[in-house]
Amino acid sequence: MNTSATQKINVQKVESSRIGQVDFDNLTFGSIFSDHMFECDYKDGAWQNPTIKPYGPLTISPAAKVFHYGQAVFEGMKAYKDENGKVWLFRPEQNFLRINKSSVRMAMPEFPRDIFFEALIELVKLDKDWVKPGLGNSLYIRPFVMATQVGVGASPSTEYKFMILLSPAQAYYLGDVKVVIADHYSRSANGGVGAAKAAGNYGAQFFPTNLAREKGFQQVIWTDASKHEYLEEAGTMNVFFRVNDTLLTAPISDRILDGVTRKSVIALAKKDNITVEERPVLVSEIVEAAEKGSLKEIFGAGTAAVISPVSAFSYKEKTFELDKQEDGFASRFKKELLDIQYNRSEDPFGWRYEVK
Amino acid sequence: MNTSATQKINVQKVESSRIGQVDFDNLTFGSIFSDHMFECDYKDGAWQNPTIKPYGPLTISPAAKVFHYGQAVFEGMKAYKDENGKVWLFRPEQNFLRINKSSVRMAMPEFPRDIFFEALIELVKLDKDWVKPGLGNSLYIRPFVMATQVGVGASPSTEYKFMILLSPAQAYYLGDVKVVIADHYSRSANGGVGAAKAAGNYGAQFFPTNLAREKGFQQVIWTDASKHEYLEEAGTMNVFFRVNDTLLTAPISDRILDGVTRKSVIALAKKDNITVEERPVLVSEIVEAAEKGSLKEIFGAGTAAVISPVSAFSYKEKTFELDKQEDGFASRFKKELLDIQYNRSEDPFGWRYEVK
Repeated sequence: MNTSATQKINVQKVESSRIGQVDFDNLTFGSIFSDHMFECDYKDGAWQNPTIKPYGPLTISPAAKVFHYGQAVFEGMKAYKDENGKVWLFRPEQNFLRINKSSVRMAMPEFPRDIFFEALIELVKLDKDWVKPGLGNSLYIRPFVMATQVGVGASPSTEYKFMILLSPAQAYYLGDVKVVIADHYSRSANGGVGAAKAAGNYGAQFFPTNLAREKGFQQVIWTDASKHEYLEEAGTMNVFFRVNDTLLTAPISDRILDGVTRKSVIALAKKDNITVEERPVLVSEIVEAAEKGSLKEIFGAGTAAVISPVSAFSYKEKTFELDKQEDGFASRFKKELLDIQYNRSEDPFGWRYEVK
Repeated sequence: MNTSATQKINVQKVESSRIGQVDFDNLTFGSIFSDHMFECDYKDGAWQNPTIKPYGPLTISPAAKVFHYGQAVFEGMKAYKDENGKVWLFRPEQNFLRINKSSVRMAMPEFPRDIFFEALIELVKLDKDWVKPGLGNSLYIRPFVMATQVGVGASPSTEYKFMILLSPAQAYYLGDVKVVIADHYSRSANGGVGAAKAAGNYGAQFFPTNLAREKGFQQVIWTDASKHEYLEEAGTMNVFFRVNDTLLTAPISDRILDGVTRKSVIALAKKDNITVEERPVLVSEIVEAAEKGSLKEIFGAGTAAVISPVSAFSYKEKTFELDKQEDGFASRFKKELLDIQYNRSEDPFGWRYEVK
């Protein structure tokens, strides 16, 4: 891993900001980008020329390996503004560690800690006016790495580009989320890349998710590829099941993303003396709990939507509705997480990270 | 599928060819590209502006979905020049059908047949001087499709780019290929995207392949992700096992690419009255055949190397060497395929397709 000495980041500022043209009350998630972006190239075995520059198009060869062999990984993070105008990140160390873990699995070079944090802080500071105050508003942060070597030989790229984009976001309310439990398609294999935030993992889910959408469901809860017996994750979020007052979630494996929101929910639950079982969760036990009435809640946990309550799930053409829980675990964890993220409460775990 | 009427391809020729600068006797596979490329954009629900233009860089947003969610598929084909200067393709219909099958699995729009073939023919004709005569020389053809919509929301792109690049290639001799049979990592899952030529399938193999290389092996033969009991494919080629005089290969499934060279080998074998069993092949039966001496050959079949004989395989730290078969099935099928491809023999199956 290249943890070489800090290289000075070259900063090229925009001549005039585009912020005045943005309607912050009507944002489509991930479609508008802030004034600046960060870029750093890997060449000759080293990360070089870290640069903050105006957001704009890349000039890249159509033979760049990212287009052909999918060597690309990413992260999702957010910056939040508190009532005093201070800007905060949430557990950024977790995203730093995970992007490098993802890169290793995709045979890509790790990114140095010092440049990661310096770039992140400088970039968010420069575009801090794009972080709007108010619960739910945030600046979505997208670090990513892609293979840029020119060549269509099927071997790891020798050149890469690490970038960070910033996109202003409003509260991401998914509405009533209805999910389908997968019984045919799969997200990942034992010994595959499911634990990595690899680009191809996401594109691969779009087709089966479209099939679910056609039937009136928004997401798929993936199951093990061998027999579809065990519940895994929902592709853009980890999933929790509340049976009576116990919280169940699949353990981390090479098929499941080690979600930051997931591990934060587990920590909050344990602090509140809620029993959490991280263990293989059978589809059959959740169906049985739904039939008996002991299944109280299902919710997703991920950076974009924080916590997404699930209102119904379908399994093999049978649909199970869940009663709305106004003061259930989902709303409780969501409030606790938002309060920490927006500096509205104590931070007993030291999760907040000030951008200053 | 958009099979709309032929749109006239806009052709922009280079002012002067780069062909004089290319050392055709020392080509690294997939690293040099011909004078022209083909580009066609999907927007507002239709493929638009098919264009042949000088090979050169793209201008593309860093927020294009291909970088983030890996919606990208490709094909590999070759053009061959015979002794009379005629240029031939090999079963291009198969590649056309497969790229659309791959696109469907990745929630991407299919490409129209008429534009595919018109672009392919016009492009290869324009750069036909890049197809060098001589057995083994070819022009590698890389059609591919990528998601170009700007946005980091995790949903299928609404915009795409279809391209074709051409890269001159010499005989692709891999040397003695030694392979590792996978017993931990996996290439694809039941219900996953292994049957698609999706970009992410390739990047995902680089890390485990690097581990094999460190031990002196060049490739990995993937096995089923559930129990690693069945032999599948080698990632850039399908795999055949000759036990006594019977040829065994894994059946096509949603985990295995339906290789054009694979199906051509099967057709040639059947024509020659060789018994071919397309069925699940156990690792244990191949190990047992190797121990008993009935395993005569293993070879890979794929567009880039045509047929690659395997000289040794390793399974769970034990290595099995294979005797060299000068006139074995591998060399026989390779000769038969090359003779058809280079118009040096009859073409009983109608596989050749003249570029004129």
